[in-house]
Amino acid sequence: MSRFPQPIQNLINGFTRFPGIGPKTATRFVFHLLSRPEEELKNLAQSIASLKAKITHCKVCQNFSLGSPCEICQDLKRNKSLVCVVSRPQDLEALEKTNEYPGVYHILGGTISPLQGIGPEHLKIQELINRVKKDNIQEIILALNPDMNGETTSLYLTKLLKPFNIKITRLARGLPVGSELEYADEVTLSSALKGRKEV
Amino acid sequence: MSRFPQPIQNLINGFTRFPGIGPKTATRFVFHLLSRPEEELKNLAQSIASLKAKITHCKVCQNFSLGSPCEICQDLKRNKSLVCVVSRPQDLEALEKTNEYPGVYHILGGTISPLQGIGPEHLKIQELINRVKKDNIQEIILALNPDMNGETTSLYLTKLLKPFNIKITRLARGLPVGSELEYADEVTLSSALKGRKEV
Repeated sequence: MSRFPQPIQNLINGFTRFPGIGPKTATRFVFHLLSRPEEELKNLAQSIASLKAKITHCKVCQNFSLGSPCEICQDLKRNKSLVCVVSRPQDLEALEKTNEYPGVYHILGGTISPLQGIGPEHLKIQELINRVKKDNIQEIILALNPDMNGETTSLYLTKLLKPFNIKITRLARGLPVGSELEYADEVTLSSALKGRKEV
Repeated sequence: MSRFPQPIQNLINGFTRFPGIGPKTATRFVFHLLSRPEEELKNLAQSIASLKAKITHCKVCQNFSLGSPCEICQDLKRNKSLVCVVSRPQDLEALEKTNEYPGVYHILGGTISPLQGIGPEHLKIQELINRVKKDNIQEIILALNPDMNGETTSLYLTKLLKPFNIKITRLARGLPVGSELEYADEVTLSSALKGRKEV
């Protein structure tokens, strides 16, 4: 039996539903909040309560956004014939931070994962096919995680997109910049060897 | 510049203020919330907004509670002459889980930490002294963390409480149950040696 008063226990239970958060961390969160000014809590509560009402999906790229189409899809300076397929909005954010990508995106909302029961039908794949059919897309960059689920999804998409006769590429594999060769795993090193470039 | 829509970014900033939470984890929290039903978000927001209004401090033991005195201090079966001094409400919770402690508590609200600028005046020490003066306390158990700040605070309290001529004890040091001797650190092992008991 917990000794915490009910309002504290309720909030602990709420935070325990967050990804990667157990009861101990959830308890720390609640006691942190108890030590903060009333106004900060009200603001946080307001942000949470209004989150879903304010956020919608861009009907083009499937990203979360304030309106549809989103800022990126509306941007006239963006190359609409170049589409980068990513798994999650966070991946888009990472690519945007490079400030080097001139095209637009398509967010799948995950990757195919038989173990977690996520099949192609749970992802925004049909929406991607519709874009390919409708828009004049010249290249699709598959920017999924270089892990098993990402590879499976890339393979699946490649097969699906082949008949449309567009260029399909994927991000380069190799040594991360700033890393040490000595500590690179064999698969990464083997990819780096295969993908070696003339200088 | 962040590409996340403002309501998402605001909430990310809010979660980043939580202890031990950086921008990446905060972002995961927000996308987790976006995937949850509207009602769950409303409930969470409600729990946060009403937290401080519903929770007060027990005037006796200083614990967070629904009323003052708290359930434990009101409990007639508790031995009021035995007071266990802890740093935080979580520590009280841990002791309660043993189901073996018959006394009451006093929550200091932290430990003396010169590096973080926390002095005795920031802790509920005067309140403890007042209890000692007023109530018929026979034993005080100092149950603070066995680290530098905990030791400093224990030492400070021992000096302060000595004139009142009450029994002052601290939790035993030794090998954690279920641990392996081989992996015990020297200080713990040395404590376990010094505190050895005849069988």
